[in-house]
Amino acid sequence: MDERDLYFRIERLFANYCATLDEGELEAWPEFFIEDGLYQMIARENHAYGYPIPLLLLDSQGMMKDRVYSLRNANIYQAHRYRHAQSGIRITARGGDGLRVSSSYIVVQTLNEGVSHIYQAGSYYDWLVETPQGLRFKERVCVYDTSRIATLLATPV
Amino acid sequence: MDERDLYFRIERLFANYCATLDEGELEAWPEFFIEDGLYQMIARENHAYGYPIPLLLLDSQGMMKDRVYSLRNANIYQAHRYRHAQSGIRITARGGDGLRVSSSYIVVQTLNEGVSHIYQAGSYYDWLVETPQGLRFKERVCVYDTSRIATLLATPV
Amino acid sequence: MDERDLYFRIERLFANYCATLDEGELEAWPEFFIEDGLYQMIARENHAYGYPIPLLLLDSQGMMKDRVYSLRNANIYQAHRYRHAQSGIRITARGGDGLRVSSSYIVVQTLNEGVSHIYQAGSYYDWLVETPQGLRFKERVCVYDTSRIATLLATPV
Repeated sequence: MDERDLYFRIERLFANYCATLDEGELEAWPEFFIEDGLYQMIARENHAYGYPIPLLLLDSQGMMKDRVYSLRNANIYQAHRYRHAQSGIRITARGGDGLRVSSSYIVVQTLNEGVSHIYQAGSYYDWLVETPQGLRFKERVCVYDTSRIATLLATPV
Repeated sequence: MDERDLYFRIERLFANYCATLDEGELEAWPEFFIEDGLYQMIARENHAYGYPIPLLLLDSQGMMKDRVYSLRNANIYQAHRYRHAQSGIRITARGGDGLRVSSSYIVVQTLNEGVSHIYQAGSYYDWLVETPQGLRFKERVCVYDTSRIATLLATPV
Repeated sequence: MDERDLYFRIERLFANYCATLDEGELEAWPEFFIEDGLYQMIARENHAYGYPIPLLLLDSQGMMKDRVYSLRNANIYQAHRYRHAQSGIRITARGGDGLRVSSSYIVVQTLNEGVSHIYQAGSYYDWLVETPQGLRFKERVCVYDTSRIATLLATPV
Protein backbone atom coordinates (compact mmCIF):
# COMPACT_ATOMS: atom_id res chain seq x y z
CA MET A 1 0.00 0.00 0.00
CA ASP A 2 1.27 3.44 -0.83
CA GLU A 3 2.46 5.68 1.97
CA ARG A 4 -0.19 8.29 1.45
CA ASP A 5 -2.95 5.71 1.83
CA LEU A 6 -1.35 4.43 4.98
CA TYR A 7 -1.17 7.85 6.58
CA PHE A 8 -4.76 8.49 5.56
CA ARG A 9 -5.92 5.32 7.29
CA ILE A 10 -3.88 6.08 10.42
CA GLU A 11 -5.37 9.57 10.59
CA ARG A 12 -8.88 8.12 10.42
CA LEU A 13 -8.08 5.56 13.14
CA PHE A 14 -6.65 8.24 15.43
CA ALA A 15 -9.55 10.62 14.82
CA ASN A 16 -11.99 7.86 15.78
CA TYR A 17 -9.92 6.87 18.81
CA CYS A 18 -9.78 10.43 20.17
CA ALA A 19 -13.46 11.10 19.45
CA THR A 20 -14.44 7.93 21.29
CA LEU A 21 -12.66 9.09 24.43
CA ASP A 22 -13.66 12.74 24.07
CA GLU A 23 -17.32 11.77 23.70
CA GLY A 24 -17.02 9.57 26.77
CA GLU A 25 -17.87 6.36 24.90
CA LEU A 26 -15.58 4.27 27.06
CA GLU A 27 -17.23 0.96 26.17
CA ALA A 28 -16.06 1.32 22.57
CA TRP A 29 -12.46 2.03 23.54
CA PRO A 30 -11.18 -1.60 23.90
CA GLU A 31 -12.39 -2.30 20.34
CA PHE A 32 -9.49 -0.26 18.99
CA PHE A 33 -7.13 -2.97 20.25
CA ILE A 34 -6.54 -6.56 19.19
CA GLU A 35 -7.45 -9.24 21.72
CA ASP A 36 -3.99 -9.48 23.27
CA GLY A 37 -3.31 -5.80 22.78
CA LEU A 38 -1.38 -3.66 25.26
CA TYR A 39 -2.26 -0.25 26.64
CA GLN A 40 0.33 1.44 28.76
CA MET A 41 0.67 4.88 30.28
CA ILE A 42 4.11 5.75 31.57
CA ALA A 43 6.00 8.87 32.67
CA ARG A 44 8.57 10.26 30.25
CA GLU A 45 11.35 9.80 32.78
CA ASN A 46 10.56 6.16 33.46
CA HIS A 47 10.30 5.46 29.76
CA ALA A 48 13.57 7.24 28.96
CA TYR A 49 15.59 5.42 31.62
CA GLY A 50 13.97 2.07 31.03
CA TYR A 51 12.27 1.94 34.44
CA PRO A 52 9.50 -0.53 33.88
CA ILE A 53 6.88 0.94 36.19
CA PRO A 54 3.94 2.41 34.32
CA LEU A 55 1.05 4.33 35.79
CA LEU A 56 -1.33 2.05 33.99
CA LEU A 57 -0.80 -1.24 32.17
CA LEU A 58 -3.53 -3.29 30.58
CA ASP A 59 -2.30 -6.17 28.48
CA SER A 60 -5.43 -7.62 26.94
CA GLN A 61 -8.76 -6.42 25.63
CA GLY A 62 -10.35 -8.26 28.55
CA MET A 63 -8.39 -6.17 31.07
CA MET A 64 -9.42 -3.04 29.21
CA LYS A 65 -13.07 -4.02 29.43
CA ASP A 66 -12.65 -4.71 33.15
CA ARG A 67 -11.11 -1.31 33.57
CA VAL A 68 -14.03 0.36 31.81
CA TYR A 69 -16.49 -1.64 33.90
CA SER A 70 -14.71 -0.53 37.03
CA LEU A 71 -14.69 3.10 35.92
CA ARG A 72 -18.40 2.95 35.27
CA ASN A 73 -19.39 1.07 38.42
CA ALA A 74 -16.80 1.17 41.16
CA ASN A 75 -14.49 4.15 40.94
CA ILE A 76 -15.52 7.47 42.37
CA TYR A 77 -14.12 10.51 40.66
CA GLN A 78 -15.19 13.89 39.52
CA ALA A 79 -17.06 14.09 36.23
CA HIS A 80 -14.79 15.41 33.56
CA ARG A 81 -14.40 15.64 29.84
CA TYR A 82 -11.31 15.25 27.68
CA ARG A 83 -10.48 16.98 24.44
CA HIS A 84 -7.53 15.72 22.40
CA ALA A 85 -5.35 17.75 20.08
CA GLN A 86 -3.50 15.15 18.06
CA SER A 87 -0.72 16.00 15.65
CA GLY A 88 2.67 15.08 14.25
CA ILE A 89 1.92 11.54 13.06
CA ARG A 90 5.02 9.70 11.85
CA ILE A 91 5.44 6.14 10.62
CA THR A 92 8.79 5.18 12.11
CA ALA A 93 8.99 1.58 10.90
CA ARG A 94 7.02 -0.67 8.61
CA GLY A 95 7.39 -4.41 8.19
CA GLY A 96 5.65 -7.74 7.97
CA ASP A 97 4.57 -7.52 11.61
CA GLY A 98 2.88 -4.14 11.26
CA LEU A 99 3.59 -0.46 11.63
CA ARG A 100 5.36 1.54 14.29
CA VAL A 101 3.90 5.02 14.58
CA SER A 102 4.63 7.95 16.86
CA SER A 103 2.63 11.11 17.37
CA SER A 104 1.98 13.94 19.84
CA TYR A 105 -1.06 14.65 21.95
CA ILE A 106 -2.25 17.42 24.20
CA VAL A 107 -5.29 16.52 26.27
CA VAL A 108 -7.36 19.34 27.71
CA GLN A 109 -9.63 18.47 30.60
CA THR A 110 -12.79 20.25 31.69
CA LEU A 111 -14.06 19.52 35.17
CA ASN A 112 -17.44 20.24 36.74
CA GLU A 113 -16.63 23.82 37.55
CA GLY A 114 -16.28 24.47 33.83
CA VAL A 115 -12.68 25.57 33.45
CA SER A 116 -10.51 23.87 30.82
CA HIS A 117 -6.87 23.18 31.56
CA ILE A 118 -4.07 21.10 30.13
CA TYR A 119 -4.37 17.69 31.67
CA GLN A 120 -1.59 15.88 29.93
CA ALA A 121 0.84 16.39 27.06
CA GLY A 122 2.84 13.53 25.63
CA SER A 123 3.63 11.10 22.85
CA TYR A 124 1.89 8.02 21.61
CA TYR A 125 4.21 5.23 20.55
CA ASP A 126 2.07 2.72 18.68
CA TRP A 127 2.32 -0.66 17.09
CA LEU A 128 -0.49 -1.08 14.56
CA VAL A 129 -1.55 -4.25 12.80
CA GLU A 130 -3.97 -5.08 10.00
CA THR A 131 -7.11 -6.94 11.00
CA PRO A 132 -10.32 -7.79 9.15
CA GLN A 133 -11.80 -4.71 10.90
CA GLY A 134 -9.00 -2.46 9.64
CA LEU A 135 -5.97 -1.11 11.50
CA ARG A 136 -5.95 -1.90 15.21
CA PHE A 137 -3.56 -1.31 18.10
CA LYS A 138 -1.32 -4.15 19.13
CA GLU A 139 0.30 -1.62 21.45
CA ARG A 140 -0.42 1.94 22.44
CA VAL A 141 2.15 3.38 24.81
CA CYS A 142 1.30 6.86 26.13
CA VAL A 143 4.43 8.57 27.41
CA TYR A 144 3.42 11.71 29.26
CA ASP A 145 5.59 14.78 29.76
CA THR A 146 3.34 16.04 32.53
CA SER A 147 4.55 14.27 35.64
CA ARG A 148 2.23 15.93 38.10
CA ILE A 149 -1.06 14.39 37.14
CA ALA A 150 -3.97 13.39 39.30
CA THR A 151 -3.18 10.04 40.87
CA LEU A 152 -6.68 8.77 40.41
CA LEU A 153 -6.24 8.53 36.70
CA ALA A 154 -9.82 8.05 35.85
CA THR A 155 -9.87 7.30 32.15
CA PRO A 156 -7.42 6.38 29.40
CA VAL A 157 -6.12 9.06 27.05
CA MET B 1 -15.64 11.76 -5.19
CA ASP B 2 -13.25 9.51 -3.37
CA GLU B 3 -13.05 9.74 0.39
CA ARG B 4 -9.44 10.88 0.44
CA ASP B 5 -10.24 13.82 -1.83
CA LEU B 6 -13.14 14.74 0.37
CA TYR B 7 -11.03 14.77 3.53
CA PHE B 8 -8.40 16.79 1.73
CA ARG B 9 -10.94 19.43 0.76
CA ILE B 10 -12.42 19.56 4.26
CA GLU B 11 -8.96 20.01 5.75
CA ARG B 12 -8.29 22.95 3.43
CA LEU B 13 -11.66 24.53 4.29
CA PHE B 14 -11.04 24.17 8.03
CA ALA B 15 -7.48 25.51 7.77
CA ASN B 16 -8.79 28.59 5.96
CA TYR B 17 -11.65 29.02 8.41
CA CYS B 18 -9.36 28.90 11.47
CA ALA B 19 -6.74 31.15 9.87
CA THR B 20 -9.39 33.74 9.02
CA LEU B 21 -10.45 33.96 12.67
CA ASP B 22 -6.93 33.70 14.06
CA GLU B 23 -5.73 36.51 11.80
CA GLY B 24 -8.69 38.60 12.93
CA GLU B 25 -10.17 38.88 9.41
CA LEU B 26 -13.71 38.88 10.71
CA GLU B 27 -15.23 40.39 7.55
CA ALA B 28 -14.28 37.25 5.61
CA TRP B 29 -15.87 34.91 8.15
CA PRO B 30 -19.50 34.95 6.86
CA GLU B 31 -18.23 33.94 3.41
CA PHE B 32 -17.59 30.43 4.73
CA PHE B 33 -21.36 29.96 5.04
CA ILE B 34 -24.14 29.70 2.50
CA GLU B 35 -26.68 32.52 2.46
CA ASP B 36 -29.12 30.84 4.83
CA GLY B 37 -26.36 29.19 6.81
CA LEU B 38 -26.50 28.68 10.57
CA TYR B 39 -23.81 29.39 13.14
CA GLN B 40 -24.51 28.28 16.66
CA MET B 41 -22.45 28.13 19.83
CA ILE B 42 -23.92 26.06 22.62
CA ALA B 43 -22.76 24.53 25.91
CA ARG B 44 -22.12 20.78 25.94
CA GLU B 45 -24.74 20.25 28.63
CA ASN B 46 -27.48 22.09 26.77
CA HIS B 47 -26.63 20.25 23.58
CA ALA B 48 -26.54 16.86 25.28
CA TYR B 49 -29.90 17.29 27.00
CA GLY B 50 -31.58 18.95 24.05
CA TYR B 51 -32.01 22.32 25.76
CA PRO B 52 -32.37 24.68 22.87
CA ILE B 53 -30.71 27.77 24.35
CA PRO B 54 -27.45 28.57 22.65
CA LEU B 55 -24.97 31.24 23.67
CA LEU B 56 -24.97 32.54 20.14
CA LEU B 57 -27.23 31.80 17.19
CA LEU B 58 -26.95 33.42 13.80
CA ASP B 59 -29.14 31.88 11.14
CA SER B 60 -28.18 33.72 7.96
CA GLN B 61 -25.12 35.22 6.36
CA GLY B 62 -26.79 38.60 6.83
CA MET B 63 -26.97 38.11 10.61
CA MET B 64 -23.33 37.09 10.62
CA LYS B 65 -22.37 40.25 8.77
CA ASP B 66 -24.39 42.31 11.27
CA ARG B 67 -22.60 40.60 14.09
CA VAL B 68 -19.22 41.41 12.58
CA TYR B 69 -20.28 45.00 12.00
CA SER B 70 -21.38 45.25 15.61
CA LEU B 71 -18.12 43.74 16.84
CA ARG B 72 -16.16 46.26 14.81
CA ASN B 73 -18.22 49.32 15.65
CA ALA B 74 -20.39 48.93 18.72
CA ASN B 75 -19.10 46.34 21.15
CA ILE B 76 -16.45 47.23 23.65
CA TYR B 77 -14.15 44.45 24.65
CA GLN B 78 -10.54 43.82 25.32
CA ALA B 79 -8.32 43.24 22.32
CA HIS B 80 -7.48 39.59 22.01
CA ARG B 81 -6.24 37.02 19.59
CA TYR B 82 -7.35 33.45 19.03
CA ARG B 83 -5.28 30.48 17.97
CA HIS B 84 -7.05 27.29 16.95
CA ALA B 85 -5.71 23.77 17.26
CA GLN B 86 -8.01 21.73 15.06
CA SER B 87 -7.91 17.97 14.88
CA GLY B 88 -9.84 14.74 14.67
CA ILE B 89 -11.87 15.42 11.53
CA ARG B 90 -14.48 12.73 10.84
CA ILE B 91 -17.10 12.47 8.11
CA THR B 92 -20.04 11.00 9.98
CA ALA B 93 -22.58 10.95 7.16
CA ARG B 94 -22.60 11.62 3.45
CA GLY B 95 -25.61 11.94 1.20
CA GLY B 96 -27.32 13.91 -1.51
CA ASP B 97 -27.84 16.86 0.82
CA GLY B 98 -24.19 17.20 1.80
CA LEU B 99 -21.75 16.02 4.43
CA ARG B 100 -21.97 15.77 8.18
CA VAL B 101 -18.57 16.28 9.76
CA SER B 102 -17.41 16.40 13.35
CA SER B 103 -14.05 17.53 14.72
CA SER B 104 -12.33 18.85 17.84
CA TYR B 105 -10.97 22.29 18.57
CA ILE B 106 -8.95 23.90 21.30
CA VAL B 107 -8.85 27.68 21.10
CA VAL B 108 -6.07 29.49 22.91
CA GLN B 109 -6.62 33.17 23.60
CA THR B 110 -4.01 35.83 24.16
CA LEU B 111 -5.16 39.06 25.79
CA ASN B 112 -3.43 42.41 26.01
CA GLU B 113 -1.24 41.45 28.92
CA GLY B 114 0.37 38.82 26.71
CA VAL B 115 -0.45 35.58 28.49
CA SER B 116 -1.96 32.72 26.47
CA HIS B 117 -4.59 30.52 28.05
CA ILE B 118 -7.15 27.98 26.94
CA TYR B 119 -10.24 29.92 26.04
CA GLN B 120 -12.48 27.15 24.85
CA ALA B 121 -12.29 23.46 24.01
CA GLY B 122 -15.06 21.71 22.16
CA SER B 123 -16.43 20.02 19.08
CA TYR B 124 -17.59 21.32 15.77
CA TYR B 125 -20.62 19.54 14.34
CA ASP B 126 -20.89 20.65 10.74
CA TRP B 127 -23.16 20.29 7.77
CA LEU B 128 -21.22 21.04 4.60
CA VAL B 129 -22.62 21.53 1.11
CA GLU B 130 -21.11 21.92 -2.34
CA THR B 131 -21.36 25.37 -3.90
CA PRO B 132 -19.79 26.93 -7.00
CA GLN B 133 -17.20 28.40 -4.56
CA GLY B 134 -16.39 24.99 -3.11
CA LEU B 135 -17.46 23.46 0.18
CA ARG B 136 -19.36 25.84 2.44
CA PHE B 137 -21.09 25.56 5.83
CA LYS B 138 -24.83 25.09 5.86
CA GLU B 139 -24.42 24.65 9.61
CA ARG B 140 -21.56 24.98 12.05
CA VAL B 141 -22.52 24.09 15.59
CA CYS B 142 -19.78 24.73 18.17
CA VAL B 143 -20.41 22.68 21.29
CA TYR B 144 -18.04 23.84 24.00
CA ASP B 145 -16.86 21.76 26.95
CA THR B 146 -15.70 24.85 28.78
CA SER B 147 -18.75 26.18 30.54
CA ARG B 148 -17.11 29.03 32.34
CA ILE B 149 -16.33 31.35 29.47
CA ALA B 150 -16.42 35.10 29.32
CA THR B 151 -20.02 36.21 28.94
CA LEU B 152 -19.11 38.90 26.48
CA LEU B 153 -18.27 36.42 23.81
CA ALA B 154 -16.62 38.80 21.49
CA THR B 155 -15.93 36.81 18.37
CA PRO B 156 -16.92 33.49 16.81
CA VAL B 157 -14.63 30.48 17.13
CA MET C 1 3.32 18.05 -8.57
CA ASP C 2 -0.29 17.81 -7.57
CA GLU C 3 -1.51 19.81 -4.59
CA ARG C 4 -2.39 16.80 -2.50
CA ASP C 5 1.10 15.41 -2.81
CA LEU C 6 2.53 18.73 -1.84
CA TYR C 7 0.42 19.00 1.29
CA PHE C 8 1.33 15.43 2.16
CA ARG C 9 5.03 16.20 1.93
CA ILE C 10 4.66 19.41 3.96
CA GLU C 11 2.79 17.52 6.67
CA ARG C 12 5.60 14.97 6.90
CA LEU C 13 8.24 17.70 7.08
CA PHE C 14 6.35 19.52 9.84
CA ALA C 15 5.74 16.33 11.82
CA ASN C 16 9.46 15.55 11.71
CA TYR C 17 10.39 19.12 12.61
CA CYS C 18 8.10 19.19 15.66
CA ALA C 19 9.14 15.71 16.81
CA THR C 20 12.81 16.67 16.60
CA LEU C 21 12.26 19.60 18.96
CA ASP C 22 9.80 17.78 21.20
CA GLU C 23 12.23 14.86 21.61
CA GLY C 24 15.00 17.32 22.44
CA GLU C 25 17.15 16.33 19.45
CA LEU C 26 18.46 19.83 18.99
CA GLU C 27 21.49 18.78 16.94
CA ALA C 28 19.21 17.61 14.14
CA TRP C 29 17.27 20.86 14.04
CA PRO C 30 19.56 22.90 11.70
CA GLU C 31 19.30 20.11 9.12
CA PHE C 32 15.74 21.19 8.36
CA PHE C 33 17.14 24.39 6.84
CA ILE C 34 19.19 25.08 3.73
CA GLU C 35 22.72 26.39 4.31
CA ASP C 36 21.80 30.06 4.12
CA GLY C 37 18.42 29.49 5.72
CA LEU C 38 16.81 31.92 8.12
CA TYR C 39 15.14 31.21 11.45
CA GLN C 40 13.39 34.09 13.11
CA MET C 41 11.17 34.44 16.15
CA ILE C 42 9.29 37.70 16.42
CA ALA C 43 6.36 39.12 18.42
CA ARG C 44 3.04 39.47 16.58
CA GLU C 45 3.00 43.21 17.21
CA ASN C 46 6.48 43.81 15.82
CA HIS C 47 5.70 41.68 12.79
CA ALA C 48 2.37 43.41 12.15
CA TYR C 49 3.80 46.92 12.31
CA GLY C 50 6.98 46.07 10.44
CA TYR C 51 9.28 46.65 13.40
CA PRO C 52 12.34 44.68 12.50
CA ILE C 53 13.43 43.57 15.96
CA PRO C 54 13.03 39.83 16.48
CA LEU C 55 13.57 37.95 19.70
CA LEU C 56 15.82 35.55 17.85
CA LEU C 57 17.38 35.72 14.39
CA LEU C 58 19.68 33.11 12.95
CA ASP C 59 20.46 33.57 9.28
CA SER C 60 22.54 30.54 8.38
CA GLN C 61 22.74 26.88 9.26
CA GLY C 62 26.13 27.68 10.85
CA MET C 63 24.52 30.16 13.25
CA MET C 64 21.88 27.61 14.12
CA LYS C 65 24.55 25.04 14.94
CA ASP C 66 26.35 27.61 17.10
CA ARG C 67 23.12 28.29 18.90
CA VAL C 68 22.58 24.61 19.60
CA TYR C 69 26.19 24.25 20.78
CA SER C 70 25.69 27.18 23.11
CA LEU C 71 22.44 25.75 24.44
CA ARG C 72 24.16 22.46 25.14
CA ASN C 73 27.33 23.85 26.66
CA ALA C 74 27.07 27.42 27.83
CA ASN C 75 23.54 28.47 28.66
CA ILE C 76 22.07 27.69 32.03
CA TYR C 77 18.35 27.17 32.11
CA GLN C 78 15.81 24.93 33.66
CA ALA C 79 15.25 21.56 32.03
CA HIS C 80 12.05 21.57 30.08
CA ARG C 81 10.20 19.76 27.37
CA TYR C 82 8.12 21.09 24.51
CA ARG C 83 5.07 19.56 22.91
CA HIS C 84 3.79 21.03 19.66
CA ALA C 85 0.20 21.01 18.44
CA GLN C 86 0.49 21.94 14.80
CA SER C 87 -2.50 22.61 12.59
CA GLY C 88 -4.02 24.72 9.85
CA ILE C 89 -1.40 24.26 7.15
CA ARG C 90 -2.00 26.47 4.10
CA ILE C 91 0.05 26.91 0.95
CA THR C 92 -0.30 30.63 0.32
CA ALA C 93 1.91 30.93 -2.78
CA ARG C 94 3.71 28.58 -5.10
CA GLY C 95 6.25 29.50 -7.74
CA GLY C 96 9.61 28.75 -9.31
CA ASP C 97 11.40 29.87 -6.14
CA GLY C 98 9.52 27.55 -3.80
CA LEU C 99 6.46 27.51 -1.60
CA ARG C 100 5.08 29.96 0.92
CA VAL C 101 3.26 28.17 3.68
CA SER C 102 1.52 29.37 6.84
CA SER C 103 0.28 27.34 9.78
CA SER C 104 -0.60 27.56 13.48
CA TYR C 105 1.22 26.17 16.48
CA ILE C 106 0.54 25.86 20.17
CA VAL C 107 3.57 24.81 22.19
CA VAL C 108 3.01 23.32 25.62
CA GLN C 109 5.96 23.32 27.99
CA THR C 110 6.59 21.03 30.92
CA LEU C 111 9.18 22.15 33.46
CA ASN C 112 10.92 20.16 36.17
CA GLU C 113 8.07 20.44 38.61
CA GLY C 114 5.91 18.49 36.16
CA VAL C 115 3.13 20.90 35.32
CA SER C 116 2.32 21.54 31.66
CA HIS C 117 1.32 25.00 30.52
CA ILE C 118 0.95 26.90 27.28
CA TYR C 119 4.35 28.29 26.49
CA GLN C 120 3.67 29.94 23.18
CA ALA C 121 0.94 30.15 20.59
CA GLY C 122 1.57 31.59 17.17
CA SER C 123 1.96 31.20 13.43
CA TYR C 124 4.72 29.83 11.29
CA TYR C 125 5.29 31.73 8.05
CA ASP C 126 7.54 29.54 5.95
CA TRP C 127 9.41 29.61 2.69
CA LEU C 128 10.12 26.05 1.56
CA VAL C 129 12.42 24.94 -1.25
CA GLU C 130 13.15 21.63 -2.94
CA THR C 131 16.56 20.11 -2.24
CA PRO C 132 18.09 16.71 -3.00
CA GLN C 133 17.12 15.83 0.62
CA GLY C 134 13.50 16.84 0.07
CA LEU C 135 11.69 19.99 1.20
CA ARG C 136 13.75 22.26 3.42
CA PHE C 137 13.23 25.65 5.05
CA LYS C 138 14.72 28.66 3.34
CA GLU C 139 12.88 30.67 5.97
CA ARG C 140 10.89 29.84 9.06
CA VAL C 141 9.44 32.90 10.76
CA CYS C 142 7.69 32.17 14.08
CA VAL C 143 5.31 34.98 14.96
CA TYR C 144 4.12 34.50 18.51
CA ASP C 145 0.86 35.81 19.96
CA THR C 146 2.09 35.29 23.49
CA SER C 147 4.09 38.40 24.29
CA ARG C 148 4.93 37.53 27.86
CA ILE C 149 7.36 34.70 27.38
CA ALA C 150 10.43 33.83 29.36
CA THR C 151 13.25 36.10 28.27
CA LEU C 152 15.78 33.34 28.36
CA LEU C 153 14.31 31.68 25.35
CA ALA C 154 16.14 28.46 25.69
CA THR C 155 15.31 26.55 22.55
CA PRO C 156 13.69 27.16 19.17
CA VAL C 157 10.05 26.28 18.60
